[in-house]
Amino acid sequence: MNIVGLIVEYNPLHNGHAYHFAEAKSLAEADAVVAVMSGDFLQRGEPAIVSKWARTEMALHLGVDLVLELPVAYAVQPAEWFAHGAVATLEATGVVSHLCFGSEAGALEDLQPLAARLADESAALKAAVAEELATGASYPAAYAAAAARACAGPGGDAAAARALLMQPNNSLGLHYLIALRRLHSGIAPLTVRRRAAGYHDAAPQDAAIASATAVRALLAGAGGLEAAAPYLPPSTTAILAREFAAGRGPVTWDSFAQQLFHRLLLCSPAELATHHEMNEGLEYRIKKLLPQLEEATVTQLLKQLKTKRYTHTKLQRTLLHVLLQHARSALSPAVLAGGPGYLRVLGFNKTGRELLKQMKKTATLPIVTRTAGLNNRHLELDLQASAVYANAMPGHDTNDLFRDYRQPPITI
Amino acid sequence: MNIVGLIVEYNPLHNGHAYHFAEAKSLAEADAVVAVMSGDFLQRGEPAIVSKWARTEMALHLGVDLVLELPVAYAVQPAEWFAHGAVATLEATGVVSHLCFGSEAGALEDLQPLAARLADESAALKAAVAEELATGASYPAAYAAAAARACAGPGGDAAAARALLMQPNNSLGLHYLIALRRLHSGIAPLTVRRRAAGYHDAAPQDAAIASATAVRALLAGAGGLEAAAPYLPPSTTAILAREFAAGRGPVTWDSFAQQLFHRLLLCSPAELATHHEMNEGLEYRIKKLLPQLEEATVTQLLKQLKTKRYTHTKLQRTLLHVLLQHARSALSPAVLAGGPGYLRVLGFNKTGRELLKQMKKTATLPIVTRTAGLNNRHLELDLQASAVYANAMPGHDTNDLFRDYRQPPITI
Repeated sequence: MNIVGLIVEYNPLHNGHAYHFAEAKSLAEADAVVAVMSGDFLQRGEPAIVSKWARTEMALHLGVDLVLELPVAYAVQPAEWFAHGAVATLEATGVVSHLCFGSEAGALEDLQPLAARLADESAALKAAVAEELATGASYPAAYAAAAARACAGPGGDAAAARALLMQPNNSLGLHYLIALRRLHSGIAPLTVRRRAAGYHDAAPQDAAIASATAVRALLAGAGGLEAAAPYLPPSTTAILAREFAAGRGPVTWDSFAQQLFHRLLLCSPAELATHHEMNEGLEYRIKKLLPQLEEATVTQLLKQLKTKRYTHTKLQRTLLHVLLQHARSALSPAVLAGGPGYLRVLGFNKTGRELLKQMKKTATLPIVTRTAGLNNRHLELDLQASAVYANAMPGHDTNDLFRDYRQPPITI
Repeated sequence: MNIVGLIVEYNPLHNGHAYHFAEAKSLAEADAVVAVMSGDFLQRGEPAIVSKWARTEMALHLGVDLVLELPVAYAVQPAEWFAHGAVATLEATGVVSHLCFGSEAGALEDLQPLAARLADESAALKAAVAEELATGASYPAAYAAAAARACAGPGGDAAAARALLMQPNNSLGLHYLIALRRLHSGIAPLTVRRRAAGYHDAAPQDAAIASATAVRALLAGAGGLEAAAPYLPPSTTAILAREFAAGRGPVTWDSFAQQLFHRLLLCSPAELATHHEMNEGLEYRIKKLLPQLEEATVTQLLKQLKTKRYTHTKLQRTLLHVLLQHARSALSPAVLAGGPGYLRVLGFNKTGRELLKQMKKTATLPIVTRTAGLNNRHLELDLQASAVYANAMPGHDTNDLFRDYRQPPITI
């Protein structure tokens, strides 16, 4: 049986995802699809527009057979750790045969040589990254430059490597390949070229497919859900409509403005510096900037914090760690290198139920379908993240706050 | 020159306060009035309905000549520490000759003998309080019982002492008298009988005077400011109208619901237990109660937390320390016993300006008219408290958030 793994955020699930899903299934000649999905907070350091439960429903309607949650400890991280957590999750199921990801390159041949070099060269690479960072470059730029240097030898093409890595999906894809290598995984990688709109584009450029960023911009605009609907499967549109009507979305960074400012105002620079990713004096920069903000919004804070060195994404993630009270020690490299400690099941269909049965024999991590019982620090972070996410919903009630403790996996 | 000190909260300033003000001035034959006022958070563990700046204006319009802020370290405390901080502030001015407070007893003769006994008996009293607490009594009840036991000897009247202390203004007044004794203060105490509505009453019982609690209930009701206006000086009504129109009030506990729940959801019991007043396993009770709450409101949380042992006030104060991230160590008895470290000037009139000139010679603490410069841990707590208070205002902007850093004393 071929079972293809996807690494997704579905924020929200749109026609581009449906395209990728179909391509992945076909490329892998897959009998089933397992998705590992970020929970309520995402890789770029943002809250999802609707909860992980709503997004799980979207995934199941698309045809995903089993949805697993990527722990927040890995979900809100730079590409390396995000990829490590997601690939390790797929690997730990013991049933996934293929991993299919979108990339700008669209061809594994462009990425595998680079992955081979970078997977093996981690100490030298780290030193090179540190050198590049010392010049004031942002982390992604520093990594791309360091990777290029690593490829500068015989048979390598430094400029091509650098150009490749500056594209965000190539970069993620490369890290999936590296993670597969480092985990000595038997999962076979596949890639699909990303179509149409670029990841960062804010306006739809295609009648049927728009990026998730563009879809969210439409949802936030005057046209709302109606304007976004052409780019969404009908099931996504229906789920979003239901969630918005119930006051469970849309959730944005500014839904957390009061909570974030509250914490930033109360924490001293030394207290801020105890959070994951808060380093290099960024804590002082934030405290100094607060009184000079033009508006007390997260959007404005991010805008005024932005420098060449700190990408928007890095800043968003750092603020998210402050918001979620993520201590540096809880997400140290030593802790993260150990990989996720559980497989949290968010939803499944009939095929997924069969997969879960099979996984009882093959899985190398505990399968969590109810949160009571398993005592795991990262699972606690997931539960806390979901509770504070619900607390920021425009019209939440106490059931929303503690849904994660009560909700069995979604089934369709 | 006679200068009378008042210890106030003015939440909001109403006709009853105006009555007390006139009585105090007359009793003390005072040439000037100095008020020490709680900042944005109050003794009963609540946020003030409008900011300390607006309430300072109310005080100045009433005729108070100089308004000093009671540091939040003392303002949100049981009667003993509240009284200690407030009396020490008045004493440190070096100019206050009298202290006038309202009491149900209305006669110093009823309170002074008790104060004399309790001021001298602190170790034995503490032991007696601990014994009473061990029976499951609330702190105020335990203190009243222990004080009664202390008065049970020759010449004492235990039952009368107990009855006296169960009335909140007597209890505060008694602690003012104790504080004066312990500080060996030369300030002469005076008391005025509290008129009409009891402290805890929620409905006005008099055409002209209603308690602050009753006034706030009217403000929160359908009649709003118009319904409350008969009980307020016109200046208070005008200031409230302006503040509400600008989105700077009314602020209530539920203005902080998201911020409080956010923190309660993220902190483990062990983390909760690091906060001031969070003890006796209350941290576990809170964490256990959260998923069972009928509504995710502070009102509901307080209602469901309430037991015979934990008074509403004690619970409110404890939650406020969590909200404000007040560490137990920052407000330890050893720290508080040292007294306030500064005299923060919130406002003054022409007479107050003269008092301040005089205080340059007489004051035993630094006089703070701008917050820049003085490095004091309790002043930092005041600034943080005001910032997070502003962050909870319905329509705040960044100027509100950092007003405390920029606002010179209010003058009229």
